Amino acid sequence: MSERSFVVAVVGATGAVGEVLLTLLAERDFPIGELRPLASERSVGSTIRFAGKDVPVQLAEPSAFDGADFVFFAATGSLSKDLAPEAAKRGAIVIDKSSTWRLNDDVPLVVPEINADALEKHQGIISCPNCTTIGFVMALEPIRRAAGLRQVIVTTLQAVGGTGKPGLDELEEQKAALRSGQPAVPKVYAAQIADNVVPLCESFRDDGYSTEEVKLLHETRKILGMSSLDVSMTCVRVPVPVGHSASILIETETPLSAAAAREALSAFPGVEVMDDPANNIFPTPADVVDRDEVLVGRIRKDIGSDRLWIWQVSDNLRKGAATNAIQIAEAMISRGLR
Amino acid sequence: MSERSFVVAVVGATGAVGEVLLTLLAERDFPIGELRPLASERSVGSTIRFAGKDVPVQLAEPSAFDGADFVFFAATGSLSKDLAPEAAKRGAIVIDKSSTWRLNDDVPLVVPEINADALEKHQGIISCPNCTTIGFVMALEPIRRAAGLRQVIVTTLQAVGGTGKPGLDELEEQKAALRSGQPAVPKVYAAQIADNVVPLCESFRDDGYSTEEVKLLHETRKILGMSSLDVSMTCVRVPVPVGHSASILIETETPLSAAAAREALSAFPGVEVMDDPANNIFPTPADVVDRDEVLVGRIRKDIGSDRLWIWQVSDNLRKGAATNAIQIAEAMISRGLR
Repeated sequence: MSERSFVVAVVGATGAVGEVLLTLLAERDFPIGELRPLASERSVGSTIRFAGKDVPVQLAEPSAFDGADFVFFAATGSLSKDLAPEAAKRGAIVIDKSSTWRLNDDVPLVVPEINADALEKHQGIISCPNCTTIGFVMALEPIRRAAGLRQVIVTTLQAVGGTGKPGLDELEEQKAALRSGQPAVPKVYAAQIADNVVPLCESFRDDGYSTEEVKLLHETRKILGMSSLDVSMTCVRVPVPVGHSASILIETETPLSAAAAREALSAFPGVEVMDDPANNIFPTPADVVDRDEVLVGRIRKDIGSDRLWIWQVSDNLRKGAATNAIQIAEAMISRGLR
Repeated sequence: MSERSFVVAVVGATGAVGEVLLTLLAERDFPIGELRPLASERSVGSTIRFAGKDVPVQLAEPSAFDGADFVFFAATGSLSKDLAPEAAKRGAIVIDKSSTWRLNDDVPLVVPEINADALEKHQGIISCPNCTTIGFVMALEPIRRAAGLRQVIVTTLQAVGGTGKPGLDELEEQKAALRSGQPAVPKVYAAQIADNVVPLCESFRDDGYSTEEVKLLHETRKILGMSSLDVSMTCVRVPVPVGHSASILIETETPLSAAAAREALSAFPGVEVMDDPANNIFPTPADVVDRDEVLVGRIRKDIGSDRLWIWQVSDNLRKGAATNAIQIAEAMISRGLR
């Protein structure tokens, strides 16, 4: 990539996304000169393992960003709201995984395979879309390039890993409770998630939509640069540890055959088609765990119209979070923006 | 209901649906003079418990139908294909849960709350719709009566109980395997179902649709008497023991507000609205287990159109199977058709 090396800070280094981020920075040989794992007071004093060494976790505070090239925020929105501007002010490039900055006009919201050009106008903070949005737009963009998009209808089936460790813990705790004949007491989610599905991701707004659903709409529009794209959605939580799925019906501008859609999806970087019904081949969350690709299958024409059905699966912690964040940093370097 | 009593045979008395059917026949005080639990050779010799007595299971063969008033088929399609005409020939009313007769023009396909009138033209065999279809049409019919139906788009999230005991066993076996670090080996389904979702219910046809998806289309059209209704669907299996869910987008003939839809659904017999986002109230499969009602929530207008989103849940073994079958028999009696 480059013989230069960079000072990289990771805020939220001890969380679910932070852990995957550190693993991937090592796996992808990201040119790190110095790594600074940062976290809230609670985690200070612990160490994280990186490239064979134990690195002490430091407090996430403004001075920790001095001299940093890249600061990945894999933490809560409030931490990002307070600290991202401090990091940017100190000359670092912030790549933020929280929802805080996503719809800010001065902040590029980037999936590098789709809209890396938006990075050119950055003002220090770059935002990484929601984990559900990333897999979704990765499946839409090849179709759009082939035939345009008129309307998209989607029901998502989202893994508990999308809620981070609390979600993963809640699923396991409830499974154990049910096994021993105890009730599954909801704490993180509004209803039992083990042995169940919950038609609510995040929380409800006054209009009856969930915050997750509205994010999916607005982030998709911003990334695709289609400010009035008609996206219609219901987001559902399912008892799956990792891997978000989406059942998507797409109305294109011009008719597109299933074969042509399959070809467009196969040719797109970061997308892999798994679609051979005759041999029971289709992607599931279990297939995508620890993979960077967005998997697409069940590509077929609607029975009564020219629309296309597809089924999309992605690892919400990888392409849905850590992979996409690192790809943004890599794109910044290769474009000479750092 | 009536002071008369009836000879009732249940084919498949030892299966998942058969068991629930027997429980419900007792619970609902169905006027049974004589009960004949029938099954294949394998189960003959065992007994089933009914109304406080052990009743021996007999072989499902033509002579077992002599003198029967009602024969419930809760067995495989092939058994129903061979034996249902034999039962009808002997003057019994057959209520069949298999898919064998559903689309036969001479066989009424009935959800009593919706199209009990179709029973009047029966010729001995009456068919009970697929468990997914029943919950789906129960949620559509009140909307249709209020504003007509132009188009329906649905993604189902179906419980493993829809595959009967083999599905329930597969989920539990795979959960146990994963807990002990073993791989989850698929036998009943084409892919791992524990900790996963599988975008295939039943098996694939040559056109890339699953048999379940096509059933949902054709059965819905027949029950609603709308032979060209545009139903667009993807059916997904989820790791839930009992309770099918459906995420449904409905385009009505005339605009219908969410409030009016809520009212229409609430007023419909057999439907219960659970819809109060401000208090995190919505239905999930865990809420519907052992209930006869179809639960509906998340009733809201689409953001970009006049369409309505709803979320529907029903117990696939109760209203999706046994309850509906018994309601058919009850309707036959109250209409004087037996």
